[in-house]
Amino acid sequence: MIIQLEKDLKEQYKQGIINKVISEGFTITEVKTQMAAYLICISKNNIDIRKIGSLPGVMDVHIISDSYQLVSAKWKLRPSSISVGDVQIGNTDFTIMAGPCAIENESQVWSIAKHLVDNGVQIMRGGVFKPRSSPYAFQGLGKEGLVMFYKICKQHGLKIISEVMEVDQIDQMCDLVDIFQVGARNSQNFNLLHALGKTDKPVLIKRGTSGTIDELLQSAEYVFSSGNEKLILCERGIRTFENASRNTFDINAIPILKKKSHLPVIADPSHGIGIREHVTAIALAAIVAGADGLIYEVHKNPEEALSDGQQTLSFNESATLLKKIGQLSHVFKLPI
Amino acid sequence: MIIQLEKDLKEQYKQGIINKVISEGFTITEVKTQMAAYLICISKNNIDIRKIGSLPGVMDVHIISDSYQLVSAKWKLRPSSISVGDVQIGNTDFTIMAGPCAIENESQVWSIAKHLVDNGVQIMRGGVFKPRSSPYAFQGLGKEGLVMFYKICKQHGLKIISEVMEVDQIDQMCDLVDIFQVGARNSQNFNLLHALGKTDKPVLIKRGTSGTIDELLQSAEYVFSSGNEKLILCERGIRTFENASRNTFDINAIPILKKKSHLPVIADPSHGIGIREHVTAIALAAIVAGADGLIYEVHKNPEEALSDGQQTLSFNESATLLKKIGQLSHVFKLPI
Amino acid sequence: MIIQLEKDLKEQYKQGIINKVISEGFTITEVKTQMAAYLICISKNNIDIRKIGSLPGVMDVHIISDSYQLVSAKWKLRPSSISVGDVQIGNTDFTIMAGPCAIENESQVWSIAKHLVDNGVQIMRGGVFKPRSSPYAFQGLGKEGLVMFYKICKQHGLKIISEVMEVDQIDQMCDLVDIFQVGARNSQNFNLLHALGKTDKPVLIKRGTSGTIDELLQSAEYVFSSGNEKLILCERGIRTFENASRNTFDINAIPILKKKSHLPVIADPSHGIGIREHVTAIALAAIVAGADGLIYEVHKNPEEALSDGQQTLSFNESATLLKKIGQLSHVFKLPI
Amino acid sequence: MIIQLEKDLKEQYKQGIINKVISEGFTITEVKTQMAAYLICISKNNIDIRKIGSLPGVMDVHIISDSYQLVSAKWKLRPSSISVGDVQIGNTDFTIMAGPCAIENESQVWSIAKHLVDNGVQIMRGGVFKPRSSPYAFQGLGKEGLVMFYKICKQHGLKIISEVMEVDQIDQMCDLVDIFQVGARNSQNFNLLHALGKTDKPVLIKRGTSGTIDELLQSAEYVFSSGNEKLILCERGIRTFENASRNTFDINAIPILKKKSHLPVIADPSHGIGIREHVTAIALAAIVAGADGLIYEVHKNPEEALSDGQQTLSFNESATLLKKIGQLSHVFKLPI
Repeated sequence: MIIQLEKDLKEQYKQGIINKVISEGFTITEVKTQMAAYLICISKNNIDIRKIGSLPGVMDVHIISDSYQLVSAKWKLRPSSISVGDVQIGNTDFTIMAGPCAIENESQVWSIAKHLVDNGVQIMRGGVFKPRSSPYAFQGLGKEGLVMFYKICKQHGLKIISEVMEVDQIDQMCDLVDIFQVGARNSQNFNLLHALGKTDKPVLIKRGTSGTIDELLQSAEYVFSSGNEKLILCERGIRTFENASRNTFDINAIPILKKKSHLPVIADPSHGIGIREHVTAIALAAIVAGADGLIYEVHKNPEEALSDGQQTLSFNESATLLKKIGQLSHVFKLPI
Repeated sequence: MIIQLEKDLKEQYKQGIINKVISEGFTITEVKTQMAAYLICISKNNIDIRKIGSLPGVMDVHIISDSYQLVSAKWKLRPSSISVGDVQIGNTDFTIMAGPCAIENESQVWSIAKHLVDNGVQIMRGGVFKPRSSPYAFQGLGKEGLVMFYKICKQHGLKIISEVMEVDQIDQMCDLVDIFQVGARNSQNFNLLHALGKTDKPVLIKRGTSGTIDELLQSAEYVFSSGNEKLILCERGIRTFENASRNTFDINAIPILKKKSHLPVIADPSHGIGIREHVTAIALAAIVAGADGLIYEVHKNPEEALSDGQQTLSFNESATLLKKIGQLSHVFKLPI
Repeated sequence: MIIQLEKDLKEQYKQGIINKVISEGFTITEVKTQMAAYLICISKNNIDIRKIGSLPGVMDVHIISDSYQLVSAKWKLRPSSISVGDVQIGNTDFTIMAGPCAIENESQVWSIAKHLVDNGVQIMRGGVFKPRSSPYAFQGLGKEGLVMFYKICKQHGLKIISEVMEVDQIDQMCDLVDIFQVGARNSQNFNLLHALGKTDKPVLIKRGTSGTIDELLQSAEYVFSSGNEKLILCERGIRTFENASRNTFDINAIPILKKKSHLPVIADPSHGIGIREHVTAIALAAIVAGADGLIYEVHKNPEEALSDGQQTLSFNESATLLKKIGQLSHVFKLPI
Repeated sequence: MIIQLEKDLKEQYKQGIINKVISEGFTITEVKTQMAAYLICISKNNIDIRKIGSLPGVMDVHIISDSYQLVSAKWKLRPSSISVGDVQIGNTDFTIMAGPCAIENESQVWSIAKHLVDNGVQIMRGGVFKPRSSPYAFQGLGKEGLVMFYKICKQHGLKIISEVMEVDQIDQMCDLVDIFQVGARNSQNFNLLHALGKTDKPVLIKRGTSGTIDELLQSAEYVFSSGNEKLILCERGIRTFENASRNTFDINAIPILKKKSHLPVIADPSHGIGIREHVTAIALAAIVAGADGLIYEVHKNPEEALSDGQQTLSFNESATLLKKIGQLSHVFKLPI
């Protein structure tokens, strides 16, 4: 059960509500976000919602039987819209994020930034802390690389999304990124999610390689319930028995997530299929299935990229994709 | 290695080619289809292709290293087009097949047939032999139901696709269907596939619930190498850990199959997600990803369908889907 | 609901029971096996079991809410024991079946038969109809091979288990095998299962590559409800994302199947891991987990086997495995 | 390629080796553990190993083509033995770790500690930082609970293994635990693994829910290459399509891990099957398959446990399991 509290509610009224709810056998988690205050009340008992709704200080009450509460579409019927400066994500907007897998050097960033600006993309992706299966693989340029990335993006008027792998990195990164990305391997790193709930920056959470749709929503619930409503979900393919593609892009997840949650849903076709020549097909499919945006990998010379080159678009391919998206948007109001 | 033989080749020339190939350490399978004659030659050795290409009677030779040969795009670069009477499937055409999960009674068939004709659909699906996990579930109306289904379709000028489960049923069904459907559970029923290779009717093969893309192509190879080139592949979702949907529709499989094979690829969004309200989203996504057509479930009263009602579209939903497909086709030449 | 009928019940009493059950809203399937007669009654309604139990002619009644009925342990608490001539499978017995993947030639069969007899194994496995992914791979020696296999086994006093792939093969094989094996790819070939229900020979059903435990039990239900109680279940590994082994042997399935069903459960460690040097470890693990027996692959020269050589034990390895099983049986009454 | 350096090697000799290796086109990672110093050299080139082996200061050189190096059995043929005070894990020893899922209160810990001591178990497990899918579920008693847990264990002469979820917790826990446990969800939390490489405490790494065997070994490589050789691998079940059990215990992983790596392999049958009545069967199977030990959940009143009660053994069940293990060890030298 979610109880939305009135704005600037006096402590005494809040305490009254809490006492009532506890007396009904619920345990309570108080949540205060950038936008509002909530009481999340969990119990195996049923309750007549009117008992709570009539209390002074209660703005609204919703019974939610899912394993997640605040991210559910059952209490917030209108899709959320996340502000990243002057860029909006979700609801009636469609947003592209693109860039290299890893930030490599100035000339690489500069060339890609220019490509994005030339094609109307407003958010640039790029990793400086790279989760790699092997300790001997390239681990990213770290903080220093991020400073360089930041400077070039500001010069181009681009927003930045970059992956955070560890609680300690949040402070290092906070002034240099516009959106924190939580990678698939950290999708259930609850300490990291909790800490990101204490920031005011939007957080994009990638679905775990073998994470269920419900687990992704519960991971988002961790951030929301820790105080940060600015959340974006990302489908990026799951691990199955099929080896013809790097992952199995779960196109079903897009309409299902949009139905279950009010949060925007972004698709990552690059990881979703992992095969460069088919990234465009999956990107367009994700849009038509209802995605609120895309995050994809692009590089001046995909063959020379330090990581993920086999799934990275060239500038030409990227421009063609963006043109096709434009055509689609004339038929379907995007997201459809 | 595939050797295409010249038309009406004299036996003595064929024998000369066979002798040469055997002397190079290959084992040979002779294939004669409706359209051409081939020698499929398997060996662990390499061979200089010119040794064969220069023999009298050889039209063309191709080395193919995949686990399938005749269905590979490596020797037949142009997409195949399958004729079903005056309807074409594949290459530059886009084809819709729709109808109920199971044929139930005359009025059901009549109402759906009318809906299809009114909306320009030319092929009707409907099962009379139903593979059901439980022996106590409705098993279909059998041959008698097929006769009724046939009569109504002929009256409406509709083609029929219906599932065959067993070698014995081929003869029973052959004059009453236009396309044989091989279900997901029979995707590796090699005796059935071999027997369907002896017919002259098109065969649509559904991917196995946990079948790989390569296994689907090998199953098609069984039919082709037994003499029947008229093949259609169908992606219908695979089994994964995710339970929020009935299956995980493998959107990746569509561009990958189109790249690997010259055969048309049809998408089944009904089984692919298994949730009625999301079937349209998956159908459109499949088209944009490159599918050559759709097969989906529609019923006058989905709630009352004897099977699969939860994934079956109503007439309104079906009409809306078909209208959206029309809009898409104005932007993208379909399949894109 | 399962109603067990009294032996040689007069038609009029049976009809009385049927009428009563139908009047309560159930649909009925009459089952007559080698051993007894049953009515399987399916409904969404509840019923007071005493209403049925008191009718003349009813021996016993059981409400079973699972998707399978006759194979459930809920009505037949004592494990079933299957007779194969003088060999017993299930309950307090432990049974080994071993032999080559495919029957290749007389000297191969002779050498393996001798190995089995020398080591106390009573049932020999060997395929003559081989389901192969590729139409160009060795497809088995067919009926002729089976006749040869049969003769050599009779000379050695060995029972035979061999795979049946197709309804037509049942008659061909019936006098030549002691146990029909249904392979993983035919685990949901319902026509085949139904036809095997009309024979009087024991049937071993392998779990499908991606078949659930419940689906395996439902497949067994097909055979049982068609008239054949002599059923053996076989765990042989499932398809997962892990590629370090051929399949993932689902050791959990053994105690779970034993709990859910009264049927004997046999383990196939050869397919279960697919790596020769580890087959023994998995075989022993399966026994300790409660398996009623093993079916494994053995060959005089595994390196030269026409199929599955990489998972086939040599005679030495096979003898060592059998010796270890003997040691285990001194500690644990097998199956434990 | 792994180069083992001689003990206390002079800097000048080390530099000579490094220069030589770099000149051959390798990149080098220097590793210094509690026990030895290594150079890990990665390249796509081949090298004649004798060029390196003959250099002064080189103790041994091994070419290893796997995606992991230091944890590979290819250079360290003898199984590793990890010391936890006077308890040894791996090689010829067999080790039991047992205890509750979560540390709840003093009387709970006291009762379980007594049960363990009475039955000869030397290591107690128990979580104080609990990774839970939902932010509203019990998250563990934290540091305070660990202090209490520590005191009671010391009074009973028990070692402690407990899960660490976050880099910051390492220092808090270091003096209070004997073995750090990395949970399935953190199996690819590379920052955590790297930080644990800087401690001198043994680390048990659980396989990720959908982690491959190779990924588990690469995760162990992270800890080893950061300086800590005291590593234990743990198979705890993987996520598959089968829902009859909580996870699919991958029994195959045990002999495969033992073959690929020199590290000890522990089995977690509680999570592996997730069904209390079958935990014993899986525990015994894991032992027979070659596990070096077990970690399982036990509680005075499993029904009242705050988490994982449905897979937790009672004292009676635990005592019976331990007795059966004793019987097994009389037949098989454990691990077999």
